[in-house]
Amino acid sequence: MTRIEQAKKGIITDEMNMAARGEGLSPEVVRQAVANGSIVIVKNTLRTISPLVVGAKTRIKVNANIGTSSSLASIDEELQKMLVSVKFGADAIMDLSTSGDLRRIREAILEKCPVAVGTVPLYEMALRAKAGNKSILDITDDEMFEVIEDHCTQGVDFLTLHCGVTMQSVARFKNCERLGGAVSRGGTIIMEWIHHNKRENPLYTQFDRLLGILARNDVAVSLGDAFRPGTLKDASDRAQIEELVILGELVKRAREKHVGVFVEGPGHMPMDQIAANMQIQKTLCENAPFYVLGPLVTDISPGYDHITAAIGGAIAGMAGADFLCYVTPAEHLRLPSIDDVKEGVVASRIAAHAADIARGIPGAMDWDNALSKAKMDLDWEKMISLCVDQEKARAYRASLPPQEGDGAVCSICGEFCAIRRSKNVVENK
Amino acid sequence: MTRIEQAKKGIITDEMNMAARGEGLSPEVVRQAVANGSIVIVKNTLRTISPLVVGAKTRIKVNANIGTSSSLASIDEELQKMLVSVKFGADAIMDLSTSGDLRRIREAILEKCPVAVGTVPLYEMALRAKAGNKSILDITDDEMFEVIEDHCTQGVDFLTLHCGVTMQSVARFKNCERLGGAVSRGGTIIMEWIHHNKRENPLYTQFDRLLGILARNDVAVSLGDAFRPGTLKDASDRAQIEELVILGELVKRAREKHVGVFVEGPGHMPMDQIAANMQIQKTLCENAPFYVLGPLVTDISPGYDHITAAIGGAIAGMAGADFLCYVTPAEHLRLPSIDDVKEGVVASRIAAHAADIARGIPGAMDWDNALSKAKMDLDWEKMISLCVDQEKARAYRASLPPQEGDGAVCSICGEFCAIRRSKNVVENK
Repeated sequence: MTRIEQAKKGIITDEMNMAARGEGLSPEVVRQAVANGSIVIVKNTLRTISPLVVGAKTRIKVNANIGTSSSLASIDEELQKMLVSVKFGADAIMDLSTSGDLRRIREAILEKCPVAVGTVPLYEMALRAKAGNKSILDITDDEMFEVIEDHCTQGVDFLTLHCGVTMQSVARFKNCERLGGAVSRGGTIIMEWIHHNKRENPLYTQFDRLLGILARNDVAVSLGDAFRPGTLKDASDRAQIEELVILGELVKRAREKHVGVFVEGPGHMPMDQIAANMQIQKTLCENAPFYVLGPLVTDISPGYDHITAAIGGAIAGMAGADFLCYVTPAEHLRLPSIDDVKEGVVASRIAAHAADIARGIPGAMDWDNALSKAKMDLDWEKMISLCVDQEKARAYRASLPPQEGDGAVCSICGEFCAIRRSKNVVENK
Repeated sequence: MTRIEQAKKGIITDEMNMAARGEGLSPEVVRQAVANGSIVIVKNTLRTISPLVVGAKTRIKVNANIGTSSSLASIDEELQKMLVSVKFGADAIMDLSTSGDLRRIREAILEKCPVAVGTVPLYEMALRAKAGNKSILDITDDEMFEVIEDHCTQGVDFLTLHCGVTMQSVARFKNCERLGGAVSRGGTIIMEWIHHNKRENPLYTQFDRLLGILARNDVAVSLGDAFRPGTLKDASDRAQIEELVILGELVKRAREKHVGVFVEGPGHMPMDQIAANMQIQKTLCENAPFYVLGPLVTDISPGYDHITAAIGGAIAGMAGADFLCYVTPAEHLRLPSIDDVKEGVVASRIAAHAADIARGIPGAMDWDNALSKAKMDLDWEKMISLCVDQEKARAYRASLPPQEGDGAVCSICGEFCAIRRSKNVVENK
């Protein structure tokens, strides 16, 4: 039985209890939410991690993408990226490797990673086709499902699959005359496959077969958004929404088969469209958790897209998104370095935390209050220990001259210290 | 005649024409907005800069704070910060120097700075008092106004003055039992002054005298928010809103005397309170332009407060804020380095631009569309030339291996290039 099936039968599992403690919810609330699909607990039965918990009423979670490419294929470096992501608060890691021995890379990551791991099996499908001297466009249905099964039995916790790419959604896409086309790597492979084979997407036509494979290891499916807008101008167009309608139907079917499901979303999007997108996803997909890739609120910021995504992610989180995929400063320019990964995770963590506060997650502001109290007490050591990145805060602080006298004023403002003067006023000194 | 007086008389000045061209508005629309105070054109009559234009229907503007402190007092370095700010798109500079020969520093900045310059005269009042061997708390009314007059006759374009600190707002503040007290340096000096002298704030009681001085050089007043929240927990409290009510009355009086006026705002604030704060400012202050210091949407991010402020600034801009004061990564930790200044300006520019798009400023998205088109064309050189920070984008790109073949795919994704596949689908290849 998957945990959804157990929840539907009224059983509160250890994982549900753990999730309830972690989120400050009652076990019964968690059980009901798992049963109706509004919360998904993500963990392959083969793994011993603490599960990823995403969905309504929970803290917003952050995912970091890592993985090799043809220009950067070192397992060691990817493992370091994984570790730095977890250190700075990533709740999940996606291994998007597209070069090297993918199985071995995944094995190394699964072995070392203490949080949930997701993959996009299409990349391995493409590499296997190439190894067999054929095009990814000639891959058979069975070959597709074989890769998916391998990922599940190897221990992957969630899979991104582009099941909503259908002849109908591709036709809508072509009618949109987009500025930025489609920007999903996996999604465009399926589009080309459909076109080349003049056949419907097997991940759509054989969705029940897919669910059967996933259910065996209680693997969650992240329904990929192949038609997410890649430019502001294309946001919220008919292709994007058509796919979301299809994904909503698939959410319903996944739940009927007791498979954990969440939905991926935009993308590039003007700020004023974000809240509406979150609301329409929640209705079309019957409150399935929403996993957003940004959104990026302008296209002009390659080099700073972690900031652009933090703006969009925070607004999305406030409006209902449950899971933020990080974006690094390297987005659109190169694969991220270890430093880029850290910058990306911290920016997403800030966005997620700010949105938790705005959503009214109980206790979310306690962290802020503790840091602010330390600041008012001019207790620098304690304040720094509470910063989202202690190391950076400490290094900045260390570049200042030593604190004057007894610490009654801070050395940034010296005699202009507002904290001291404010205290004098309040204490009638 | 100040430009407000001219506008009220139906005169369209050269500056109004220039502002109209720059903002894509008709000269008559600008004239009406200047007359009713919803747009302020900021420029001291002694200066030859292109004016700062802030307010409804205009592009959101960005200010960068620079200035010496007791631990960092090099004019050269501050001039470099000014230049890097302008290079990356700052529309105004505030010189917040608190150490060294303030007049000489200001002179150097005014001479070299091609955009509007603002100051906080209270800092110089404090230094002059110290030079005269007395406490800032013993400064006389005349000494205060003398410094203000000096700034105006030296060419400063706008002054931050804490006119809303009154016995009444201080009493409200004391009743609030804030976690973070008051965090405005200038504002807390006035609070202490009131307390020490048991007299009302001369900047409030002699507001008309102040307006007379400002009007002579058509200097704008930025009404400082001494009671802005310095922690999330203190946001939107009675002290903050009491001061805003007082500032609203002062806006009315400034307009009656034809003095350009805008209003400063928070501060630290949970995301879900930002839109309401922008709306209430616009009603209380009769559509005066709103100049926000952030807002910072969490307290946990010293070292990354440029990101936290970009989130808040973007939301504020979408909800009506007109002018964003940048925040650098050094905020709360030390004075900013030149790099910190650059990071702060770019983050604010991204927030302002994203908000311009969300506000529906005509043509705002053209920049995004041009960059996205270059990206789709795999025209890297053009794409990079359109990035908000070309240098950083170029450096990132340069770290990649040379592009493969004829540029038909991009070297980040190689054979997984979504752009190529997407084009194949659209073109039925």
